[in-house]
Amino acid sequence: MAKIKRIITTLVRLLVLGAALSATIVMVTSHDSAEVLNLSFDAKYTNARAFVYFAITNAIASGYSFIALFLSFSTPLWHLVFLLDVFMTLLLTSSISVALAIADVGKKGNSHAGWLPVCGQVPEFCDHVTGALIAGFSAAVLYLVLLLFSIHAVLNPKP
Amino acid sequence: MAKIKRIITTLVRLLVLGAALSATIVMVTSHDSAEVLNLSFDAKYTNARAFVYFAITNAIASGYSFIALFLSFSTPLWHLVFLLDVFMTLLLTSSISVALAIADVGKKGNSHAGWLPVCGQVPEFCDHVTGALIAGFSAAVLYLVLLLFSIHAVLNPKP
Repeated sequence: MAKIKRIITTLVRLLVLGAALSATIVMVTSHDSAEVLNLSFDAKYTNARAFVYFAITNAIASGYSFIALFLSFSTPLWHLVFLLDVFMTLLLTSSISVALAIADVGKKGNSHAGWLPVCGQVPEFCDHVTGALIAGFSAAVLYLVLLLFSIHAVLNPKP
Repeated sequence: MAKIKRIITTLVRLLVLGAALSATIVMVTSHDSAEVLNLSFDAKYTNARAFVYFAITNAIASGYSFIALFLSFSTPLWHLVFLLDVFMTLLLTSSISVALAIADVGKKGNSHAGWLPVCGQVPEFCDHVTGALIAGFSAAVLYLVLLLFSIHAVLNPKP
């Protein structure tokens, strides 16, 4: 039973690593340019602080997930891994929330504030960002699964 | 020792209740209007989906915090309370993240996307929202404290 748990945890951690790494890479490489009224407009992730935050947090989550792959089996550090899992889940939740909020305005705009949507001008950039958001959302959900798994183990310890 | 823990937990829950309730009320009552180019502009929280989400999640957190005040002492439901605390922390983290992202654009705009800041036109609305964000941020941080407190108790059970 303990062995199956280990295998599942490792599998989920590998999936998280893949998702968070993809989110980082796809976000960082997203780029498009358009010409509006003879003015060249360059769309990249650094244009919005939300996307920079998203890329940084997913990079941190990737690094931690990689290290945690080896840490989770050594019992003395188990408490630390559990605590760091909680923080990573919170970090990824906040990062996907922030990025989704800005992407939503980018796609639909906000007529009340007079903010126009930009996806019509830079569709390639928006497609890239959408991909990054899907990967980032998956990473956050997978971390929650990992956390619930750990919580279950903590609350129902083997005698 | 157990009694002190109970008192501290109850105190933190009361603070969370106050913070989340304040965040909801201050956000829902935020309102201002301005006239720009002879067009009347009404600023209220329903203009941004992020603020609506913020108000709803803080209302849910207020309701749960009130119920949890009575639940936390009854041991059979302790596991459920712990799990719900995790979800509330995640919910409040995502809600403050989303609201902060939109408030940031509202205050500073985004020159790359051509989104102008709106706080100059509706300063009263922005002040109200800032107050709600501070309360919402406090609620999220207090929930994290509560969660860390519970995690500490779970990881170090009394013999």
